[in-house]
Amino acid sequence: MYKERIRLPRLLDKVVSADTAAGLIRDGMTVGMSGFTRAGDCKEVPFALARRAASEPLRITLMTGASLGNDIDKVLAQADVIARRLPFQSDETLRRKINAGEVMFIDQHLSETVEQLRSGQIAPVDVAVVEAVAITEQGGIVPSTSVGNSASFAMLARKVIVEINLNMPLGLEGFHDIYFPVQRPYRQPIPLISAEQRIGLPYIPIDPEKIAAIVITGKDDSPSSALPPDEGTRQIAGHLSEFLGREVRAGRLSPSLQPLQAGIGTISNAVLHGLIDSPFHDLKMYSEVLQDSTIELLDSGRLTFASASSVTLSRPVYQHFLANLERYRSRLVLRPQEISNHPEILRRLGLITINTALECDIYGNVNSTHVGGTHMMNGIGGSGDFARNAHLSVFVTKSVAKGGDISSIVPMVSHVDHTEHDVDVIVTEHGLADLRGLAPRERARQVIDNCADPAYRDVLNNYFRRASRLGGQTPHLLEEALSWHVRYRDQRTMRESVPHEAMAA
Amino acid sequence: MYKERIRLPRLLDKVVSADTAAGLIRDGMTVGMSGFTRAGDCKEVPFALARRAASEPLRITLMTGASLGNDIDKVLAQADVIARRLPFQSDETLRRKINAGEVMFIDQHLSETVEQLRSGQIAPVDVAVVEAVAITEQGGIVPSTSVGNSASFAMLARKVIVEINLNMPLGLEGFHDIYFPVQRPYRQPIPLISAEQRIGLPYIPIDPEKIAAIVITGKDDSPSSALPPDEGTRQIAGHLSEFLGREVRAGRLSPSLQPLQAGIGTISNAVLHGLIDSPFHDLKMYSEVLQDSTIELLDSGRLTFASASSVTLSRPVYQHFLANLERYRSRLVLRPQEISNHPEILRRLGLITINTALECDIYGNVNSTHVGGTHMMNGIGGSGDFARNAHLSVFVTKSVAKGGDISSIVPMVSHVDHTEHDVDVIVTEHGLADLRGLAPRERARQVIDNCADPAYRDVLNNYFRRASRLGGQTPHLLEEALSWHVRYRDQRTMRESVPHEAMAA
Repeated sequence: MYKERIRLPRLLDKVVSADTAAGLIRDGMTVGMSGFTRAGDCKEVPFALARRAASEPLRITLMTGASLGNDIDKVLAQADVIARRLPFQSDETLRRKINAGEVMFIDQHLSETVEQLRSGQIAPVDVAVVEAVAITEQGGIVPSTSVGNSASFAMLARKVIVEINLNMPLGLEGFHDIYFPVQRPYRQPIPLISAEQRIGLPYIPIDPEKIAAIVITGKDDSPSSALPPDEGTRQIAGHLSEFLGREVRAGRLSPSLQPLQAGIGTISNAVLHGLIDSPFHDLKMYSEVLQDSTIELLDSGRLTFASASSVTLSRPVYQHFLANLERYRSRLVLRPQEISNHPEILRRLGLITINTALECDIYGNVNSTHVGGTHMMNGIGGSGDFARNAHLSVFVTKSVAKGGDISSIVPMVSHVDHTEHDVDVIVTEHGLADLRGLAPRERARQVIDNCADPAYRDVLNNYFRRASRLGGQTPHLLEEALSWHVRYRDQRTMRESVPHEAMAA
Repeated sequence: MYKERIRLPRLLDKVVSADTAAGLIRDGMTVGMSGFTRAGDCKEVPFALARRAASEPLRITLMTGASLGNDIDKVLAQADVIARRLPFQSDETLRRKINAGEVMFIDQHLSETVEQLRSGQIAPVDVAVVEAVAITEQGGIVPSTSVGNSASFAMLARKVIVEINLNMPLGLEGFHDIYFPVQRPYRQPIPLISAEQRIGLPYIPIDPEKIAAIVITGKDDSPSSALPPDEGTRQIAGHLSEFLGREVRAGRLSPSLQPLQAGIGTISNAVLHGLIDSPFHDLKMYSEVLQDSTIELLDSGRLTFASASSVTLSRPVYQHFLANLERYRSRLVLRPQEISNHPEILRRLGLITINTALECDIYGNVNSTHVGGTHMMNGIGGSGDFARNAHLSVFVTKSVAKGGDISSIVPMVSHVDHTEHDVDVIVTEHGLADLRGLAPRERARQVIDNCADPAYRDVLNNYFRRASRLGGQTPHLLEEALSWHVRYRDQRTMRESVPHEAMAA
C-alpha cells in the first residue's frame, strides 16, 4: 500500500523501522520535527527515541513548528530526551519540566525560528523528521495536515527522515504551497498579495539523496482540545460582531471585513463560530491554524477562502474534512509558518487578528504566556507576529478565571507579551474596549468600565485613582502593582480581604 | 528670493504671514506638522498658533513625524495649545504636561501612524503644515531635512500650509524618495530591495489646489542634542565591534555586515562613530535618523550609502552637510517614515539595529520609555519597528545612571517596550550579552555577568537565585521584582541598605 506513496522507486529501499530510523539521531543533536498545533506531527520516530533513551544517554534539542499531539512532548519529556525545546509547546508534563528549569525552552515568534536557522544564528538542524502523505517522482515531500517549519527543516538538515502516514488521504496533495524567501541580502519581495494566491510548490523540494530513512505509520492527528462555545464566549463573539458591524457602517471596513486571523483555543474558535450568523460575507482567513469554526464557516458559505499553516480539528470535523477534501481543495491552502506569519505579508494584507489574553492590564498591555509572571503556559506562538502587524488587533478573554478568584483585568500585567501599542481592542463577556487613538489614562477608563468583572471594578478604579495622583503616562503604585498576583499565589484569590487603603504600604 | 522656490506661478498669491496661515487652524482641529527628530519642522505657524492662543481658545491634536526642534513643543505646551499629541515627542515642558495627565499623548510605533490615518482609525488631519525647500512646477512639495509623515499628512489633509525655508539650500531637491503604499486590500509589495534604491518621486505629489497658504521662513533646524563619545560609550562601541568581528569570522556576517540602523541619541551615535576605525567596509545604513556619525562614516569612505527619514546633526556638521550636498547626493536618501520603518522592508533587508535601553531586566526585556514604570521620557519611536524585524537586535545602555544610584540592569523592568523575543544582544560598558538561542534562565547569567555594574551583580545574583527556587520560565519574586524602583523613588538610590533576606517580605 505504501508503494504508491513513494513514487521515486529508488527510495523504496529506504523504508525501515522507526527504531532503525531513530538510530540516525544521536545524543546532543538538534532535531527538527514536523507538527504545528497538534497537526501533522511525526508519529513513530519520537517514540522510538523515547524507547532508546531508556538504555542509553540521549538528550536532544527539539525544534518543531509549534505544539505536538499524540503526547509526543509528554513521552519525550518523561524519557528525559528533551534538553532544549523551541519555539512552542503546550504539553503539561513538558511545561512542568520547563518551569522547573530542567528543560531550556526558547519561546519564539513563530515567524522567526527559520530566519535564525537560515542565518546560522541558532544551532543547525542535524536531522529533520517530517510527516508526509507521499514522496513525488522527483523526491519532493508532500506534507500532511500542517506545514509549520517542516519545509525549512528538510531543506536545511543534513539528513531527513520521512514518515509516510497511510491514514492521511492522498487527496491532501495539492493543498500545500511551499515558498522560501531568498537569502539576505538578495531577498526579493514575497509576491503574495491575497490570501488565496499560490506562490510556491505543492511539495517540499529537496535533494532525494538527503532522505536517509522512511518510516511507515497509520496514526491519526490528536483531536483539537478546544471546548465548545458557552455563554461567555457567545457574549464575547456578540460584542465583537456588533463592533465590526459599526465599523462597516462607519465606512472603515467593507462587509467582507479584512482577512481574519484567530489564535488557537476555545475563545477564538467560538468567536469565529459566531460569525456564521453575522451579516458579513465573502470573508477570508489568513491565519496560522484553522479550527472547527473555519470548516463550519466554509460550509456555511460565509467564508470563501482560508490560508494557514495547519488544520487542527475535533474528531468529527477532522473525519468530515478528510472525507470531503475535494469540497475544500479550491478554498484552502497550507503554507510554511514563516509565510503564514510573515510580517511582510501580514502588514500588506491588513488582518483583523483575534488572539487570547491570559490577562490584560488597565492600560492595555497583554500577558499571553506566563502565569503569575513566572510560569510558562504554552508560549507566545504567532500572537506577536499577528498583533503587531494587524489592521485591527483584538484580544479576547473571559473577565475572570477560577470561579472569580482571578481577574483577567489587573492593575499591571505580571508579564508582557504584547505592549499597549499592539492592542487595539479588548473584549470580555462584559463588553468591548476600543482603544484606538487613546492615551493610556483614557484606555484605563475603557478597559475598567467595559471589560472588568463588576466584582473587581471598584478596586481597579480605586487603584487607578490613587496611582493617577502620583502622575505619569501610565500611573502605577509600584508597591501594589503586582500585589494581586502575590495575593493569588498565597491566598488563591485576587479578592481583597482588607480595605484598599491598607494595601498602599 | 522666494519666487524661484515657488515654481507654479499661481501659487505665489498664496504667500501670507504666519498669522494669516495659522488662521486656517481652528480650535479642536487635528493638525499634521512636518518634523522628525528636530529636523525639517515647520518654524513659523506653530508660533503663530501660540500667539493666538493667548487671546482665544485654541486646543488641537498635534501629529508629527517624531520630535520637533526650535522649542516648538515647549512653546505650544506652554500656550496650552496641545490637547492631544502623537506619535512621539522629546520636550521637557510637554513631557511634564503629559505626565501630569494634562496632555493626552498617544505613543506609537513610528511606522503605524499613517496606516491608522489612511484607514480612518484615528481622527483625520484637517490641516497639514509642511516645511519645504521649494514647490515644483506641478505643485509638488520638496521637503527639507526630513520627510517623516509630511507626505501622508499633505496627501490626506483637506488643506495644506507650506513653509518655504530660504535657509535650506535648493540642493536638497533630489534627496527625497516619496512612495505611498497602495490602499488595502489592493496593496502590492513595496518594491524596495536595497537601501540605496529609489522607488518614488523626489517631491510630495499633491493637488496644488489644496495648498491654502504659503509662509516664508529662514530659520535653521535645532542642532542635535547628542553628546560627544566618552569613555563609557567608547567601551560599548568596542564590545559591539569585537562581537561583530567574531560574527564575520564565524561566517555569519560578511565584512559589510548587514544594513545598520541606530536610534537617536548619544550612545547610538558613539557606537556608529566607533565603526570608523573598524575592519568593516562598504557599510550601508537603513535607519530612521542620520546623526553626525553617519556623515563622518560617509566622509571616511567606510559607509557607502545611508537611507533614513531625517538628518539631525550638530551645528558644525549641519553646516558642513548643507555646504557640501553634492558630495552626498548619490549616497543619501530621505524617505517617509512609513518606508524607513516599514516591517516589510526591515524584515526583507535584515538589519543590525542598535537602540538605547533605559533599563533591561535579567531576562532581556527592555524599557525604553517609562521612568520608574510610570513617567514618559520621549516615546517608543521606531525602536519597536526595528527591533522586532531585525536580523540582529542590539540594545545599548550604560550599566548605571545618576552616579551609580540607578542600575540599568534590574530584576524586572518597570515597563516593557521590547520583550525578550526582540532582544538579541545587550551591551553596556562592562561587556556584551549574546542572548540568541538562550532560554531565560541562561539569558539571566549572560546579562548579570556581562552587563551589570559590579556593584549590583551580587544583589542581582542573589535575586535570581532566590527567585529560581520558586520555579518558572522567568523566575521572579513578585514582592521584590519592582522594589529597586520603589527604593529609587523613595530614597534616590537603588542600592540596598539592608540585607537582601529582609527584603523578601
